Formats: sequence, C-alpha cells, structure tokens
Amino acid sequence: MSQKPSIPKGTRDFGQREMARRNYIFDTVRSVFKSFGYSQIETPAMENLGTLLGKYGDEGDKLLYRILNSGDAFASVDFNSPIAPQVCEKGLRYDLTVPFARYVVQHQGELSFPFKRFQMQPVWRADRPQKGRYREFWQCDVDVVGSRSQLCELELVQIVAKVFALLGIRVCLKINNRKILTALAEVCGYPGKVVDITVAIDKIEKIGLEAVEAEMLEKGLSAEAVAVLRPALTLSGSTASKIAAMRGMLSSSSEGMKGLDEVEELFSLISAAGVDMQCELDLSLARGLNYYTGAIFEVKALDWQIGSICGGGRYDNLTGIFGLPDMSGVGVSFGADRIYDVMCGLELFPKGLEAGADLLFANMGREELAYVLPLAAALREEGLSVEVYPDSAKLRKQFEYCERKGIPAISVCGTQEAEAGTIQVKKLSSGEQRSFSKAELGSAAAFVLGRE
Amino acid sequence: MSQKPSIPKGTRDFGQREMARRNYIFDTVRSVFKSFGYSQIETPAMENLGTLLGKYGDEGDKLLYRILNSGDAFASVDFNSPIAPQVCEKGLRYDLTVPFARYVVQHQGELSFPFKRFQMQPVWRADRPQKGRYREFWQCDVDVVGSRSQLCELELVQIVAKVFALLGIRVCLKINNRKILTALAEVCGYPGKVVDITVAIDKIEKIGLEAVEAEMLEKGLSAEAVAVLRPALTLSGSTASKIAAMRGMLSSSSEGMKGLDEVEELFSLISAAGVDMQCELDLSLARGLNYYTGAIFEVKALDWQIGSICGGGRYDNLTGIFGLPDMSGVGVSFGADRIYDVMCGLELFPKGLEAGADLLFANMGREELAYVLPLAAALREEGLSVEVYPDSAKLRKQFEYCERKGIPAISVCGTQEAEAGTIQVKKLSSGEQRSFSKAELGSAAAFVLGRE
Repeated sequence: MSQKPSIPKGTRDFGQREMARRNYIFDTVRSVFKSFGYSQIETPAMENLGTLLGKYGDEGDKLLYRILNSGDAFASVDFNSPIAPQVCEKGLRYDLTVPFARYVVQHQGELSFPFKRFQMQPVWRADRPQKGRYREFWQCDVDVVGSRSQLCELELVQIVAKVFALLGIRVCLKINNRKILTALAEVCGYPGKVVDITVAIDKIEKIGLEAVEAEMLEKGLSAEAVAVLRPALTLSGSTASKIAAMRGMLSSSSEGMKGLDEVEELFSLISAAGVDMQCELDLSLARGLNYYTGAIFEVKALDWQIGSICGGGRYDNLTGIFGLPDMSGVGVSFGADRIYDVMCGLELFPKGLEAGADLLFANMGREELAYVLPLAAALREEGLSVEVYPDSAKLRKQFEYCERKGIPAISVCGTQEAEAGTIQVKKLSSGEQRSFSKAELGSAAAFVLGRE
Repeated sequence: MSQKPSIPKGTRDFGQREMARRNYIFDTVRSVFKSFGYSQIETPAMENLGTLLGKYGDEGDKLLYRILNSGDAFASVDFNSPIAPQVCEKGLRYDLTVPFARYVVQHQGELSFPFKRFQMQPVWRADRPQKGRYREFWQCDVDVVGSRSQLCELELVQIVAKVFALLGIRVCLKINNRKILTALAEVCGYPGKVVDITVAIDKIEKIGLEAVEAEMLEKGLSAEAVAVLRPALTLSGSTASKIAAMRGMLSSSSEGMKGLDEVEELFSLISAAGVDMQCELDLSLARGLNYYTGAIFEVKALDWQIGSICGGGRYDNLTGIFGLPDMSGVGVSFGADRIYDVMCGLELFPKGLEAGADLLFANMGREELAYVLPLAAALREEGLSVEVYPDSAKLRKQFEYCERKGIPAISVCGTQEAEAGTIQVKKLSSGEQRSFSKAELGSAAAFVLGRE
C-alpha cells in the first residue's frame, strides 16, 4: 500500500521559508501596482482549448497541458476517434496575457477603459525542466489596454523602477520598438523577412554578431542586406546619438520614423518623471513573441547572471482574435521565480521574514493549562503569535522545539505563577528573564518583541 | 479567426471587486493562522496520479482532472493501448489534505514535529457545476500533525472562533467523535457496518430521521439495531447531559468510552480557554470522509442558509499510505467560496475594500505633464495611489473616468499651477477644492485621504 511520495518533474513544494520570501516579492509587486491604480483580477487555471490553441505558435501548442474532462472519460473513450475533442476540451493557463485578452473581450461591457489590471498567478508549460526553468511557475503581469499614449509605457517603466528599487535589485531596463525592427527589414530590402530577422537579432547576446549574421544569410538575406543591418546592431553611445544615427538609416521608412518618435517620446517622459533607473535603447532587443507592435521591454539584473527578470511590450492586436479589434495595450510581466533566484543569490531578503511564533507557552500539565490558555489568547490579542506546546513533554524537549522552530521566547508557568497571577518570559537568545503580572500583558508582549 | 470568448463551466473570473473581497477573507484567515504559529506551505497544482488515485473513493477518482503529459502526446498515442498511463501521469489537486500528507512524508527529515501548517490554494473537481458548487474552488486548510493531544483540537476550535469573529459571521461549531460512531455500530451489533451507518447518519439533516432509519434497514441492519441507535440520533439537552446519556449507552465499548473522554476533555479545554463561540456536541455529525478517527468538526453559519462553511477532524492514518505510519493529525478546512457567499448575503464586507486609486491627475497636454509627473511620483511616496490620465482628452471625459472607477479626487494642473508651483486638488463627492504648494505634498495627501 505504501508509495514513495514524489511530485511531478518541474514542479515544486514551497516550505515556510520559501513561502515567506515569495510572499515578500508578491506583496512588494502588488503594493507598487496598486500605487499606480491597477486593479487585481484572477482567471481560472483551466481555459477552453479554443482560447489557448494557436496563440503561442506551433511550439507553444505542444507545450500546453491538456486536461481530460474527467477520470471517467479517460476509461471509456478511444482517443484516436473523432470524439476525442469532446473528452479533452480544456488546457492549463500557459501565460497571463491570452487569458487577459479573453477577459477584456468577455467583460468589455463591465470595464472602464483605459483598463489597468494586474494579475499574479501560476502558469504551466510542458517544457523540459532544467535549472531555473519549471513546469509550474509564477508570473506577475501588469497591463493597460485602451490607450495608445506613451504615458502608459512610462507608467510601466516607473513601476519596473519602483519594484526593483524596493526589492534592492540593481537593474538595467532595455527598451526597443518593434516598428524600428520592421523598418530595418524594409530598408535592407526584405520587408517579408521581419520575423526571421527579429528572431536572429534576438539571439545576438547569446551567440554573437557573427553567428547572427550567418543565420540571416542562411534565412536567405543577401550579404548586402546583412551589411546594411550591421551598423544598427552595433550602435553605441548615448540614446540621443543612437536615435540620431537610426533616423539617418531609416529615413525612407515612415514606420521607422514613427518607431523612433515613440522611443524618443518615451525617453523624454522617463526623464521628465525623474525615473531613477538605468534605461537604454537596445536595438538588438526583439523578444521572440510576434504580437508586439510598439515598445519592447526587457529587464536585466546588473549584479547576477540570469536571463531577463521582467519583460513586455505594446501589442495592438491582442484582443482582435477574440473579436475586439483596435484595442491597443501595453504590459510587462515580472518573473517571480527568477527574481527569487536573484534575491537569494545576492542575499537581498530582509532577515526574519520566515519568523514563526513569537512565544511558546511550555505545557506543564493539565492543571497549569487552565491558567495558561487564557493568557495565550490574551497575548494573541496584543499582536503576538503564540503557541502552546500540545503535550506535557519534558521541558528539555519543549525548549528544543523552540530552538528548531526559531521561536525566540518561552514562558514556563507552573502552579507558583498560577497562584501569584504572574507570567514568566525568557528570551532564548540572551537568557534574559522577566516576570509580569496578568495586568501587564502589553508590557510582556513588548518585551517579547523587543519594543520596550 | 474571431471566437466568442468563454471560460470552462464551473470556473470563474474574478474582477477587482471580487478580488478585494476574496483577499479580505484570505488575509483574515492567514493572520489568524499565523497568530497561532502555523507555517504557510504551497504544493503544486499537479500531483502524480499515484498520489491522488484511491484516496477519495471510487467517486473521487472519477472527479479527478487528469492531465496529458503534453499536447504532443495527445496526437500520437492510442489511449486504449497499455501505453496510456505513460501519456497521462498527473492530475489536478483535488483537495489540500492528500497533498499535505504527501508533503509531510516527503519532507519529514526537514520538519519539526508537531508540525503546524496552513495552506490556501485552489482545488479542482470534475463535479456537476451548480449554484455555489464550482469546478475550481479555494480551500484554506490548517493542520497539526505529530501530536495526539486534545490541545490541538482546542487550537483549531480557537482558530475557527477567531476567524469567524473577525469576519463578523455568527456560527455554531458542531463537534463529534468518530470513536463514538464506531462504538454505536458495535453496540447495535453491526461493528462491520460502521461506514454504512456513518454515511446514513451523515444525511440526517438533509433527509430526516425516518429516511435515515429506512436507509439503515436497507443496508441490512435489523429493526432492533436501528431501535438501539435511535436515542443516540435524537439526543438533546446540554453537552454534559448528552455525554452522560451516551456513557450509559456505550458502557460496553472501550472505544466508545475513549471517544466520550476525548469529547469531554475538548469541551473542558474550550471552556478553560474562554472560547466565545457556540459549540455543540452533535452525534449526527459524521461527514462522508472515512479517514477521520477522532474529533469531527463542522461549522454552520447561524444567519445564512448554506452548507457547512468549515469542517475537519482528526485522522490517525493519513500519512500511512505514503509510508509514514502512526502520525496522528487534526485539521480543518475553511471553504473560502461559501464564506464569500455568506458575507455577500449578510453584507459583512467592510466598505471601500475595492478602492482603486486615490487621486487622478488630469492630462492637460505634453507641457503640463512635465510638471505633473514628478508630483504624481512624489505623492505615491506619500502613500497615495495615483493615476495620471494617459491621453489629453476632454476634461469631461477625464472626470467621467474618475466617476466610473470611483476615484474620489482629481487634480487639474495647467500652466498656471506649473508657473506658481502649486497643486489643485478637488474632491469629487463634496466638490471641495484646495490648493497646496509643492512643499505641502504631505498635506495634500492627507486632504485626499480625509486624514487632516
């Protein structure tokens, strides 16, 4: 009957310590989202397959987790027969963007536009698990739909800056614009190859300029076209000088001018708002996703080697597939798991986050309990987290329980204290011991918390 | 290409208002759990089928959502062939109890016992959706394992009392003990029929005494046995008198005496701890689950008609199936969705929970933005949630946005204010308007929040 217990590959249990740290990240992100007036929503873990399929490319479709309608169906149906779709209609959420688009279309009558929402939930992908890549992981998405103003982009930049400032992670925000990439494809003479070029450019940090150029040649670009693109991929200097250089290079493309105008406006707003974060224009930033139509964002941690810890961009067509065209939006997604890894690596979590109880009442037997239980209840009302040891075990064992759980103070109340109406409290780190009357429970709580 | 968007039957989207209310419940429950020293954990949404199957009875197995390994597998495998288990190895969490048992066994080396944990996550059941019953719903479980002391039961009773007191829901806690039910089966002469008797008794509130007795006869009990059981199902009076009556009835059963001792001890502890909640011994309380071995709990709302909003009990064998015998535990599960329904029905949620931003800066154009953006950032530092309207739309439209979103104050700063270095703030409910200098942003924030 006995089974050796385990969990599916690529998934994780989170214990007290991890939960405290993860909640610290989620709480911080949530507080920043709220300070900019974003509303929290949640969508179901399961979406109809029709909502999910075809939204993430062929590769994405393969990585969707599909759910059978019930255990019953599994036993009784031939999955190769045409009836199969009827027993498998749902899939697990793959990201928070497509469910959000579905939500906006489905609830458009109830929403006020521009609609600003955030969402912090797990997503699932049947990816090959590896270090730092999980099959269940958490995203924190913040989006605004229903406005084309660059102020929306600015707001996301401000949010990124604030979140990472609060978490203590030094970052660089890379900014690009999809219209510039489109224009690059135009001016090099291959307007139909914008996706190939974008995908190749996306790899520049991983494989270098030479390999990217080789890949573009392989995709059918002429050596001349590749040469035209080269200066754009190796730009340096200030943002202003990069933009000026690009204006020359893309002058024949109205799309390119529009993209450069947007970028220039955004950097101007960032400066006007006094955003205190390293921001740079990076034309090699493309991100694989095809739905971006304007700004593209990616955040890198400066002091820890890891992929991007946050990213996003503007999309003009996201809700169109669900029947609501012309609803431009922009958003970014914070990768909670990678942020967690960075904060662990750099030891950025505040001390004492995973604190359990503040005080343990030792269990001296049934009679003493009648004295101790109301005291414990009263101290909880004073704001303390209080445990009463469940068994009247040897005191040594009860002290050990405190040590293992990191409970910093213990109260041993025997018949003597019960008769005198007092409470003894001992701090385990210093050995300091104090006695309080039942009327001084506020002082006892302050003593335990070190807030006298 | 366009699809009419929808979500799977029995699942829900949660908008800003629902999220604010749900978070209020979760935050309240979490704060109480923590004040008793319980640690939060989370387990994956997906568990191996081996962990889940056979734990919830045949009916439960049918209600498990099974997950295909990936979209790829779905296309290429004949599900009727013996290979099927290899493409469907995982299921969605059905409750939080079995994953907790799995967690305790898997991580036993890292845990301190008695181990006190809480867990608040969604679970999924392929049940027929109906009013108040969902296919995705949230449980808040709190358990302690590794002690047989009735103090653990008491702690849960205290937690139940505190949670519902904070939420403002008047409740009655019904308490029973499985050992008493076992003894009833013994003394009526059908010790092997304890499950049948328990299941029948469980229905007494729904179908009445007569139908329950008919069901017991149908299950093969003699009329004499049913007559023996009758007084136990129709007991009334004080807890002490009920216990006394049962002591007489079950005197031949040592199991029965043990159960009555436990119940008596628990009521005595409840009284010693000064728990302020209606608690009653209810021998008809059985709850369908077979794994309870001692105390059984169920909470009913006094002022709203709905099923139990919280329930649980003691189990001695839960971790045995995963290879760890003799690990007694006790826990209760709060049904967040039903608690939500009760609180909506009784209008118990505090006003203003779903508040969005505190203040909107009107957008008067690009030039004025340079003045407004740093002010907005500074007011966020003062603790305000601040929006800047993204487009320089007509003022009327911007005021309407405030009204629809319930933003209580607006600031219209034009060139005049920019030149004077002042900020105008208008409260929309009263029409009251005030002007502050840039050095008085703290006062401006206090004015907006009504905390002057």
